[in-house]
Parts: sequence; C-alpha cells; structure tokens
Amino acid sequence: MEKDNEFYMAEAIKMAEEAANIGEVPIGAVIVCGDRIIARAYNMTERLNDATAHAEMQAFTAASEVIGGKYLQQCTLYVTLEPCPMCCGASFWTQIGGIVYGAADERQIMGHNAKLYHPKTKITGGVLENQCSKLLKDFFKNKR
Amino acid sequence: MEKDNEFYMAEAIKMAEEAANIGEVPIGAVIVCGDRIIARAYNMTERLNDATAHAEMQAFTAASEVIGGKYLQQCTLYVTLEPCPMCCGASFWTQIGGIVYGAADERQIMGHNAKLYHPKTKITGGVLENQCSKLLKDFFKNKR
Repeated sequence: MEKDNEFYMAEAIKMAEEAANIGEVPIGAVIVCGDRIIARAYNMTERLNDATAHAEMQAFTAASEVIGGKYLQQCTLYVTLEPCPMCCGASFWTQIGGIVYGAADERQIMGHNAKLYHPKTKITGGVLENQCSKLLKDFFKNKR
Repeated sequence: MEKDNEFYMAEAIKMAEEAANIGEVPIGAVIVCGDRIIARAYNMTERLNDATAHAEMQAFTAASEVIGGKYLQQCTLYVTLEPCPMCCGASFWTQIGGIVYGAADERQIMGHNAKLYHPKTKITGGVLENQCSKLLKDFFKNKR
C-alpha cells in the first residue's frame, strides 16, 4: 500500500520537533523517492550560524548526495512550512518532482513564491496544516 | 586607500576562472568585510552533485563561519553574475550590506529578482561586466 502524504508529513513534523528541542525554529523536511525517505533535515540556522541553513536546503543537498545526481525529478519534498523564495529557487534548480507543504507562509515577506517553482514541480499545500502551524505558534509563544 | 569595486570583482573573476578550469559554469564570488576578503567561492554544482551549490550560497555559508554569526550586514558580496532568486533569497536572510554583480542575468528564468533582495541591501550591477560575461560566453561556446 502506498504511503500517503500525511504519513510523510508526520515524518517531517518529527524533524520539526527535533528542531524545537534544540531551540531552532521548528521547521522539518523529508525527501521521498519511490517509497523511501532518502533525506531528513530540520532548520539549523542557529546551530550552524548560517541564515541559509533552512530544512529544505539541507534536505536538497542530502538527497542529491544519496542519489548521486543533482536533479531530483523522481523525488517529493515534504516540509512543514511553505518554502521561502530561497528554498523555492533551490527547488527550481533541483527540478524536484513534487513539493508537499503543511502550513502556509502567511508572512510572504519577499512576495508570492508561486512563480519561483519549476513548472514541472507539483505543489500541494495544507497537509496536516494545523499540526505544522501549531508547532511554530507554540515555539514563538514560549520565546516571548 | 580604499580598494574599489573593480579590485574585488577582479578577485571574484579569478574564482570564476578556477571554476572554468574544472569544467564548472564559471561564476565566482568573494565576500568583503571592511577591507578584507573573508570568503571566496565558485560554482560547484557539478563537482558536488548539488544544484544548490552556487558560488553565492557557498560564500554566504563560509562568511558566516568566519564571522561567527548568521548576519552579514557589514559585508559586501561581489559576484560575477547577477544572483538568481535562490541566491537573492539567501542574501535576504543574511541581511548582507551590499551586493555588487558583474554581468546581468539576461535569462531571468524565474522572473525579476529585484524584489527578493533585503530592503537594506545596496545593489550595484555592471562592474567589469564585459569580462564577467565573456567568461560565461566562452565557456558555453567551448561546450558546444
């Protein structure tokens, strides 16, 4: 039986929870190829002192290493928050087959992202949305 | 005497030439803080099998490591080609003080980049433009 979007998003949520546990903004990602999770990552901007160390960026790099190639057309990224323009642009270069995200990015501080995706990337939003956004809200509530 | 934009762009061009020597699309970057080059990088998408390994991305990560912090407000990125949306988005997150690029990106395959920059990032284009674009043109001519 093929695993569904909620199954893989739950795995991405586990990664986000790991991020929260070490004080990182809780955003998690996994990349799936066929029925297999080939990369798991979470936001590490604080720990790595690197503003570009988003979950997606690290997942792309890790997945490319597993696959041994720079294109991810056969893969799907599951990420708990809608990707920012940096990560959308990165996904464009990887030509990733699909992106499934949980919570929508309500801030959209760099404008709308949709046109940054590769035309062949299938985008699905809102999977386990409440769980994904609750993680973020709880994190920032505790920070204040 | 303060070194000028052409001095640092010439250093970025040296990095692009190194990329060309190993068969990478010749795009080079340096990041300057005060009077000091704190990071040098070139495009490594082929060698690293990673579509996100643009010169700018690696320069941001390297500069953050040198500085020991994820914000680069005191720094200027010199890059031989106008940054793509991924790299613009990354520059946004670093809040880098300035970006100086050489050749304009005529393809703009993901649409215009300007609105992806951080509002505090000062953008300057066209420095040693002909040298920067000639490197790219020669590289692709030899590929055919």
